[in-house]
Amino acid sequence: MAAMMDLINELWFLPRNLVSDGYDQALARLAREVPMTIHEYPTGEPCWTWKVPEKWTCDEGFLDSMDGRRIVDVKDHPLHVVSYSLPFEGVVSREELLPHLHTHKTLPDAIPFVFKYYERDWGLSLPQTVKSSLTDEQYRVVIRTRFEPGTLKVGEVLIPGRSSQCFMLAAHLCHPALANDDMSGVAVGIQVAKALLAQKDLHFTYRLLILPETIGSVAYLSHHEDLIPNMVGGLFLEIMGNDQPFALQHSFQPESQPDRCFGSAIADISPTAQQAAYRRVIDNDERQFNAPGVRVPMLSLSRVIPEKSHPNWPYVGYHSSHDTPDLLNEERLREALDAVLGLLRAWENNQYVVNLFKGEIFCSGHNIWIDHQTNPAGHRRLFEIMERLDGSRTVADIAVELDISFQAAWEVVSLLVERGLADLSRKPHPTSPVRD
Amino acid sequence: MAAMMDLINELWFLPRNLVSDGYDQALARLAREVPMTIHEYPTGEPCWTWKVPEKWTCDEGFLDSMDGRRIVDVKDHPLHVVSYSLPFEGVVSREELLPHLHTHKTLPDAIPFVFKYYERDWGLSLPQTVKSSLTDEQYRVVIRTRFEPGTLKVGEVLIPGRSSQCFMLAAHLCHPALANDDMSGVAVGIQVAKALLAQKDLHFTYRLLILPETIGSVAYLSHHEDLIPNMVGGLFLEIMGNDQPFALQHSFQPESQPDRCFGSAIADISPTAQQAAYRRVIDNDERQFNAPGVRVPMLSLSRVIPEKSHPNWPYVGYHSSHDTPDLLNEERLREALDAVLGLLRAWENNQYVVNLFKGEIFCSGHNIWIDHQTNPAGHRRLFEIMERLDGSRTVADIAVELDISFQAAWEVVSLLVERGLADLSRKPHPTSPVRD
Amino acid sequence: MAAMMDLINELWFLPRNLVSDGYDQALARLAREVPMTIHEYPTGEPCWTWKVPEKWTCDEGFLDSMDGRRIVDVKDHPLHVVSYSLPFEGVVSREELLPHLHTHKTLPDAIPFVFKYYERDWGLSLPQTVKSSLTDEQYRVVIRTRFEPGTLKVGEVLIPGRSSQCFMLAAHLCHPALANDDMSGVAVGIQVAKALLAQKDLHFTYRLLILPETIGSVAYLSHHEDLIPNMVGGLFLEIMGNDQPFALQHSFQPESQPDRCFGSAIADISPTAQQAAYRRVIDNDERQFNAPGVRVPMLSLSRVIPEKSHPNWPYVGYHSSHDTPDLLNEERLREALDAVLGLLRAWENNQYVVNLFKGEIFCSGHNIWIDHQTNPAGHRRLFEIMERLDGSRTVADIAVELDISFQAAWEVVSLLVERGLADLSRKPHPTSPVRD
Repeated sequence: MAAMMDLINELWFLPRNLVSDGYDQALARLAREVPMTIHEYPTGEPCWTWKVPEKWTCDEGFLDSMDGRRIVDVKDHPLHVVSYSLPFEGVVSREELLPHLHTHKTLPDAIPFVFKYYERDWGLSLPQTVKSSLTDEQYRVVIRTRFEPGTLKVGEVLIPGRSSQCFMLAAHLCHPALANDDMSGVAVGIQVAKALLAQKDLHFTYRLLILPETIGSVAYLSHHEDLIPNMVGGLFLEIMGNDQPFALQHSFQPESQPDRCFGSAIADISPTAQQAAYRRVIDNDERQFNAPGVRVPMLSLSRVIPEKSHPNWPYVGYHSSHDTPDLLNEERLREALDAVLGLLRAWENNQYVVNLFKGEIFCSGHNIWIDHQTNPAGHRRLFEIMERLDGSRTVADIAVELDISFQAAWEVVSLLVERGLADLSRKPHPTSPVRD
Repeated sequence: MAAMMDLINELWFLPRNLVSDGYDQALARLAREVPMTIHEYPTGEPCWTWKVPEKWTCDEGFLDSMDGRRIVDVKDHPLHVVSYSLPFEGVVSREELLPHLHTHKTLPDAIPFVFKYYERDWGLSLPQTVKSSLTDEQYRVVIRTRFEPGTLKVGEVLIPGRSSQCFMLAAHLCHPALANDDMSGVAVGIQVAKALLAQKDLHFTYRLLILPETIGSVAYLSHHEDLIPNMVGGLFLEIMGNDQPFALQHSFQPESQPDRCFGSAIADISPTAQQAAYRRVIDNDERQFNAPGVRVPMLSLSRVIPEKSHPNWPYVGYHSSHDTPDLLNEERLREALDAVLGLLRAWENNQYVVNLFKGEIFCSGHNIWIDHQTNPAGHRRLFEIMERLDGSRTVADIAVELDISFQAAWEVVSLLVERGLADLSRKPHPTSPVRD
Repeated sequence: MAAMMDLINELWFLPRNLVSDGYDQALARLAREVPMTIHEYPTGEPCWTWKVPEKWTCDEGFLDSMDGRRIVDVKDHPLHVVSYSLPFEGVVSREELLPHLHTHKTLPDAIPFVFKYYERDWGLSLPQTVKSSLTDEQYRVVIRTRFEPGTLKVGEVLIPGRSSQCFMLAAHLCHPALANDDMSGVAVGIQVAKALLAQKDLHFTYRLLILPETIGSVAYLSHHEDLIPNMVGGLFLEIMGNDQPFALQHSFQPESQPDRCFGSAIADISPTAQQAAYRRVIDNDERQFNAPGVRVPMLSLSRVIPEKSHPNWPYVGYHSSHDTPDLLNEERLREALDAVLGLLRAWENNQYVVNLFKGEIFCSGHNIWIDHQTNPAGHRRLFEIMERLDGSRTVADIAVELDISFQAAWEVVSLLVERGLADLSRKPHPTSPVRD
């Protein structure tokens, strides 16, 4: 398996703007890793309340002093020209220039990632240190950008399962020259897809979407409305390579099965992982899936500090030229891969548990006895799980009810299934006697 | 518009007992202000578990010393004779007299309002200071009262709306010679009715009832059982002119739409307003509407101290001769009028919000963008409201869920409606995809 | 009525093992007290996931020193041989012997009750003080036990009521030579049955089961599956004679009517009684009734310290030769009898309360007035109960909602029923107007 870092190193520095050659080039490269359908949506195509934007190309972009000194040049870094900047050429006074120069709030030597997709203007991004040195009266600006008809592209990797019920994975590819946000999620997503494709016997169908942020999700969803009722859950993957514990962000429907399943399974996967409510970690494409008329319970997994008011939120270097492959390493990406696969394993296992017994099981007779004297906690857990098996609770429901991890519940459940004492069912199958 | 104080000054001192000429005279005067139907229920008429009491008239009532000094006389103040006192005439010893003399618990110079509607006795009310001076051995009592067949009268102002669903307003007119309790509620109610009658395009039908306390509500409801299923909410108006912040008392069904709507709207109307649960502010006719078999979620609005254990509860002067127009002023009554009209405006607006969009709205494209950098709270609120528009929540539901005011939710909702992005509906209209 | 202590004194010392002559002898004696059906389940009979064990007989059992000194002998106390011990005969070294000797954890002079129903071995029980004195190299062991086909017996006392809906009472008879656990529950249960049989006009049918622990319940339930849907609640009786306040253990369904009813009624019966959640006091046969596929809300009443971590839990002497009739007395058993009968009286009374009135009742007219001035708490309670009578709440629902005792709610309800103002109904009968 190709190292995830290799893929990131290869693609991260491309000018992967929303609709752009750089984006297309990166997506074409990913399509060589896994079987991928590339959906194309032409500029101007209506997508619910949105429209696909123009393709944007930056041919040249620099700032010169009047004596011909080159101050910044997009050739050095794709972030120097604001994404979707209008073209502009001319000599401007310092006063005219300054409002068009963008710097990073907290990192004086970083070039910020600035985008003007919809409220357009021309602009350059540069380090605060450079901006501070601009004391001349006049400067020369050259921004040669083109807005043309193009096609927004969404890559879809289909991993068919037995059921048409579908679980959605997504990561966005659109930020130029950023590595952790979200080439890391893209690289992990591609490896997740490979691993799922190698598995036999998946119950759910999985779809991994690689897309430009927000508009990519809206374009895909609005053109696949028939699929939406089949989408039973989702997980957005992002910011996965930096040095920070995992943060699981819940969906808009915190009582959904994906929320209960991942919320109880994450502790099995990473004891340091933190959890937070919808929109309390970081906002991304999961918003389009959770939104009205779609209402897919999509969570997100990231290595973001789960506290928006934290001074380093979401991580140091975010949306800047500091977000390079140096922030990442293969081990942390592999942990993320394992985490996603672990969550999906729990998801596949998360079924209603139907008792094939009545009363309490004769445990010693079925060789599942845990002695009360020698292992009181194990004994108690065995009984607390057993007494909840009534066809109306999933494994995740039981784990949440007992405040134990998914795996702890699953071990007992799968033992009972193995012993022929319980069945798993994708639908509720209540076995309690009905009384008036 | 006639000042509310003028109406109060004109009517407050009348001996407005439950069924009495004084009450009838006051109601007739109110009927000249607004179109009013006067329902009459004759003495003895069964009203569910109640019966309409006799008309009561007090022709004379005084206490004399044996040397002919007049100690108290009902001619000076209607409260001097207990409401529905039995007639009595005779010379009594001091010991016999004292149990028939009623004073105010906390105001030594006030005549208390005492009523003996159902456990009858003869009695006089007088200041504690006067009672204390009664050191003679014998006194002469004259109470000439009459109990006769009469008719209990309920005034009803109908304000028709498009819907037969009806919102009930009520205030009671029956306490003799008291101003704040509840001539103030009556005066505000009459002005509310005038204002509603002047409005076009009301959705709900409104009914204002002016009635004698408790028995008036029971009489009306028991004779309009067919209307009860149409009564979708209500507001009792009382004690509105004194110098105290508003207290909104919730109904027996605190999750009802009127409770959620008024509970979130009151902060828009009066930032100092307080809220309390059913029967925690003060008890009145709303009890008959909230009661079994009726179950109309009727709240109440007053200027009562919302804490029954407070030493001044419900306000200083309550149920005494101190409750005069001097406690009130026009400005506070007008604030109350505005508050009621504000609550009813929210009530008219409180509908299910049905998204005409899917996914998140393209905000900048629809000119509803709130910039995250410059107005993070506004941005967040816009999105938090938008993501809850799914045809299953009313404006009040959203406000309660987000712990924001009704108006804050309404502003975003009405903007989206204006932009053609959402519809309002009187019924739930869920738009979320249905999944098994 | 025979004293409960007499029955206990007569039967407690019998070697009442699961399936044994001693158990049969005790059950036959009880069958002379009340009409009893004795169900027999032969050895090997499948009972859901269980099988009925063999009949076990201990003919002889002693430990001798090599010089012929008798150290312990089952003739002195039935607990000296482990219940269901394998037979064994021979001279063993001290090292071989010690693992087969069982002592009590906290009581050095007590013989512990040890059973090896399913993981079989031979074993003797003796005081720690005796065990400590065993310093010889060798000892002679004689355990002559027999495993034979037999029949497990469950005694059932049927107390027919008008309804086929059935309330289950149970106590276990199977512990050899123990008095409090659970001859006390058996003795109280028999007296409860007598008292119920003497009552006319029971609504529910009652069944008292006297059985060997766990396997007895499973045997009965698995052979009476048709009855299970009729079982609407239950109460397990145990450990009722020692000097400790009552502990009411709730069922697996803490919102069930039996839980609400007994939870609110126990305070009327014993102000010192404590309550705890399912499986937080002590585990017993109620587990089989609460289990999957059965799901009868069965509570338990005992005099156990309701805190499993307490050093004396469940009581001093538990499962040892110290559990003799000396721990018990008739007065405490009678309190237990009264408590059970009190709970069942509440259970019989616990019905939906259907208002025959609308609005508030004219209290003084119906002679149920409680004056607000002289008895504000009583007045408030009257109104708080009255306003909840809408055919959708039982007496227990109202008591739980108001956090008052069952009796406090019942007194008001029964007064209203007496006055013809309310009806009782075994089914919900909602009277609130239906609005869209």
